[in-house]
Amino acid sequence: MTLDLAAYIRDVPDFPSPGIVFKDITPLLADRDALACAIERLAEFARPLRPDFVMGAEARGFILGGALAHKLGCGLAIARKPGKLPRATIRSEYALEYGTDALELHADTIGEGARVLIHDDLLATGGTAQAKIDLVRQVGADVVGLAFIIELAFLNGRERFDDLPVRSLLHVEGE
Amino acid sequence: MTLDLAAYIRDVPDFPSPGIVFKDITPLLADRDALACAIERLAEFARPLRPDFVMGAEARGFILGGALAHKLGCGLAIARKPGKLPRATIRSEYALEYGTDALELHADTIGEGARVLIHDDLLATGGTAQAKIDLVRQVGADVVGLAFIIELAFLNGRERFDDLPVRSLLHVEGE
Repeated sequence: MTLDLAAYIRDVPDFPSPGIVFKDITPLLADRDALACAIERLAEFARPLRPDFVMGAEARGFILGGALAHKLGCGLAIARKPGKLPRATIRSEYALEYGTDALELHADTIGEGARVLIHDDLLATGGTAQAKIDLVRQVGADVVGLAFIIELAFLNGRERFDDLPVRSLLHVEGE
Repeated sequence: MTLDLAAYIRDVPDFPSPGIVFKDITPLLADRDALACAIERLAEFARPLRPDFVMGAEARGFILGGALAHKLGCGLAIARKPGKLPRATIRSEYALEYGTDALELHADTIGEGARVLIHDDLLATGGTAQAKIDLVRQVGADVVGLAFIIELAFLNGRERFDDLPVRSLLHVEGE
């Protein structure tokens, strides 16, 4: 499909705080053709990487994570905020503007040596993507690539992942 | 597929609080065949209802919501916790054991007269499903059915939705 996916993203100024331009993906999700196009383009990137799992993190990484895993014929590994997963977990912390937060993954979800594609809606500074990579590596599995809907290219988050294939459907070049 | 999906659900006693048996769906999600089977069975139920949208709510309703929408060739409408959606929203409150919570939906996501399938991972008392139904009806759209992974049948949540098709992949008959 040759849809211009950028036409389905709404810029919302000053959300969630003054000076931030929020990239709202809900119009893309709500349009059947745009949704299908986004999933297919991410799958085209990911398929040659032969992942065993897609990892999506709470909450927005869940939205296309399940669809992408299904499209690729792999399993979905979900990383959640602390305290949400009921069994034994591993954990990775990441920095916020003020303080830290963390993601958890059930310790038995991804086996040693598995190939994992990381998906999230947005690549900004790359801090949460790094936390997901850490989770995968803690269990001795391999990150084979990272797939995003939107990349805030001016934040250079991609530079953290020089050694990995990274694909974003839309690049935002500046504010 | 003839998989026994119940084999992919883990009972976790006393989570999140004593006396509660948590139904952990993460093993189902992580298994490629079980994931595909769950999505296909929900889609088989939903396809004849001809939805224009699948509605999934934060956070666990997002996990299969996107995949189901894609499978059915419809759009995905996401309902979120208060304050998360950046543009003008509508809102529906629901009761918790102590107090209330609410879900919000962008006011322009679902058009009047649209056909909406509601999806969530779990049907318990049906309070949050009722809140999603209220959101759909606030914009003058129609709920055509409800699709869940697990139903806690002993809580009789289904009785609220007598007039609607309801499908759950797994029924838990008692504690």
